[in-house]
Amino acid sequence: MAVLVQKYGGTSVGDAAKIRHVAERIAAARRAGNSIAVVVSAMGDTTDRLIDLAESISAAPDPRELDVLLSTGELVSCTLVTMALREIGEEAVSMSGAQAGIRTDTAHGSASIVEFDAERVQQALDAGRIVIVAGFQGVTHEMDVTTLGRGGSDTTAVALAAALGAERCEVYTDVDGIYTADPRIVPDARKLSEIGYEEMLELASYGAKMHPRSIELAAWYNTPVLVASSARDVPGTLIHEVAPEGEGMEVANKVRGVTYERGVARITLRAVPDRPGIAAAVFEPLAESNISVDTIVQNASAERLTDLSFTVDRSDLRSALEVTEGVAGTIGAGECVSHDNLGQVSIVGTGMQNAPGVAAVMFSALAEAGVNIEMITTSQIRITCVVDEAQVNDAVRTLHDAFELGEG
Amino acid sequence: MAVLVQKYGGTSVGDAAKIRHVAERIAAARRAGNSIAVVVSAMGDTTDRLIDLAESISAAPDPRELDVLLSTGELVSCTLVTMALREIGEEAVSMSGAQAGIRTDTAHGSASIVEFDAERVQQALDAGRIVIVAGFQGVTHEMDVTTLGRGGSDTTAVALAAALGAERCEVYTDVDGIYTADPRIVPDARKLSEIGYEEMLELASYGAKMHPRSIELAAWYNTPVLVASSARDVPGTLIHEVAPEGEGMEVANKVRGVTYERGVARITLRAVPDRPGIAAAVFEPLAESNISVDTIVQNASAERLTDLSFTVDRSDLRSALEVTEGVAGTIGAGECVSHDNLGQVSIVGTGMQNAPGVAAVMFSALAEAGVNIEMITTSQIRITCVVDEAQVNDAVRTLHDAFELGEG
Repeated sequence: MAVLVQKYGGTSVGDAAKIRHVAERIAAARRAGNSIAVVVSAMGDTTDRLIDLAESISAAPDPRELDVLLSTGELVSCTLVTMALREIGEEAVSMSGAQAGIRTDTAHGSASIVEFDAERVQQALDAGRIVIVAGFQGVTHEMDVTTLGRGGSDTTAVALAAALGAERCEVYTDVDGIYTADPRIVPDARKLSEIGYEEMLELASYGAKMHPRSIELAAWYNTPVLVASSARDVPGTLIHEVAPEGEGMEVANKVRGVTYERGVARITLRAVPDRPGIAAAVFEPLAESNISVDTIVQNASAERLTDLSFTVDRSDLRSALEVTEGVAGTIGAGECVSHDNLGQVSIVGTGMQNAPGVAAVMFSALAEAGVNIEMITTSQIRITCVVDEAQVNDAVRTLHDAFELGEG
Repeated sequence: MAVLVQKYGGTSVGDAAKIRHVAERIAAARRAGNSIAVVVSAMGDTTDRLIDLAESISAAPDPRELDVLLSTGELVSCTLVTMALREIGEEAVSMSGAQAGIRTDTAHGSASIVEFDAERVQQALDAGRIVIVAGFQGVTHEMDVTTLGRGGSDTTAVALAAALGAERCEVYTDVDGIYTADPRIVPDARKLSEIGYEEMLELASYGAKMHPRSIELAAWYNTPVLVASSARDVPGTLIHEVAPEGEGMEVANKVRGVTYERGVARITLRAVPDRPGIAAAVFEPLAESNISVDTIVQNASAERLTDLSFTVDRSDLRSALEVTEGVAGTIGAGECVSHDNLGQVSIVGTGMQNAPGVAAVMFSALAEAGVNIEMITTSQIRITCVVDEAQVNDAVRTLHDAFELGEG
């Protein structure tokens, strides 16, 4: 009997009617002859409401206490889904993260799973029960409740699938799969029937719906993940290990999708002395201030002075500027300039690394469309161009066309 | 350092402002040099809302699932109180029932505590922390969450006080103590400064605010319980072991209080054959139907036929009648008649058993007030008269006056 792990997000269990609908779906999978474990998120906006409640008491709620508070959201939804299943005649049992055997470190608010002893889940499955596990939570060795951070329920689901050796982890959400581009921007964007872990990782980082850590976990354990709609019965996208040489039409296409991001700000530090230790001097203080730096570009210079540019989320710009201006004085650099109306557009695909022409196609397509490229970075499977925020939509459409990603 | 256990009910932690107020009270007790453990109920009407939520999914929610669902209410309130304490600079830590060491049987929905290993609470207290325990919940030996039933948070508090060998369990609620009668009916009702466990047990059964099982537990472990107001800083009522001979004015008064109940219905089974096994034949089927029978009166009869009367809660009358009419046929009894507009009024006091005149005073006072007595039952420390529901208030006032229980 195949073991399937299904995961339903907060929107999918947002009210009693939706919970009953989810129960019907789970029951159908069970009746189709599978052994089913399910991971659920908190109902709708429960987590946000609990955070508001905590903040009405304390400006900086204690992380250990906040974790217990937030964990109640998933306890509520997992018991309700279990009740709904029992109501339609299915043998179902709920388990908290602790009961399901999810042991984490003590990093409250963003804990990492250190061990997943799924024995109790396995026993219940063996006894013919459907097991509903509260997502997003675990427990330390001292039995203190932790939460895994946002996106944590996906991580619970993939980790459970890995621990059970499940055939597949099915992530049901309000989108019905992974698209070649955001359909709101590109009307003929095409849903991918399959995608590799690394490609999904790049897409997930740039706006798609699964948290990167859950994809990394799936890749590590080689657990296939199906992303599909909880509302509609249409095929989703299977994230799995795609053969390196790729077979079939779709995999042969080097570029698999176009992603974008808005709200990007850039800081440029001019006339930086070009000597060892400079990068550390700039970026360590930023890290200490919890500012996440994305793209970094450093131009070589003949005069032992260089320009150093990097991007941050726009909401971090002010604090990032303060830190950087402080550093500029210390290291004897020149002025600090910033630009806060940027976005970025990326093409993603594992085939790209052996196809040098891809970058050229990207740059010339953007040029023809009149999109100025402010910065360029590349990885093995992604090329990203920082552009004017107002031109992001044009750039996405241009690239989607240039790489012939659309339907038909 | 004295160990105190405080318990705050749902109304006392009903919103953020009230939670901050409770935190101030707890902090004051801590700063006065005590070691403090606190038990809290769920905020306001949380438990009712969770039950409604469950019933929107399932007409008869699975008891195990319902317990997990309901237990989240106290997890929320105990973390919020902890956050509020930390916000004002107190070292505080929350614990679930499981973490606090409350092991119960597996009777979901109305579990009994089988063991209370308060070591973790004790360690936290020893480390100078205030411990906030989620009331109403425990955990089975299989780590399944259970709830202790309504009134369970009082039981948690008293059990914790007993397990810690606390000096006192302080139960804070929306009333400021135990009165000689309901002040809404008797304007000059007087707050008792102290009361014995057994007396409180009778008062608690008849409308006062603590669940009998928590009083029984306190009596068993001889744990003093202070019932007081969470809103106002006035002396409450101390429930403790009162010396049998009673010293001082108050204890010397044989009758300590007057209680009442409305919504009482009576069923009378006429012409019941007077032979062994009849009572069991009547009351076993009622118990099997989960109908709680209160007062039972059987009149002797010369003709080997007797009348058997008993009272039930009015809401149970219809099903009780069905059961009883079925039984009547089986045992060859006569007709079944019922009366559904009754109430009862009781006088309570440990001194009563050695004072035969008390009953006579009660009956003649009611007679003078024109209150007809329908049924009478007595216990060691209580005399109860079933009367017309419309005369309950008159009866309470009459008895309060007759036994000179009022102020001055």
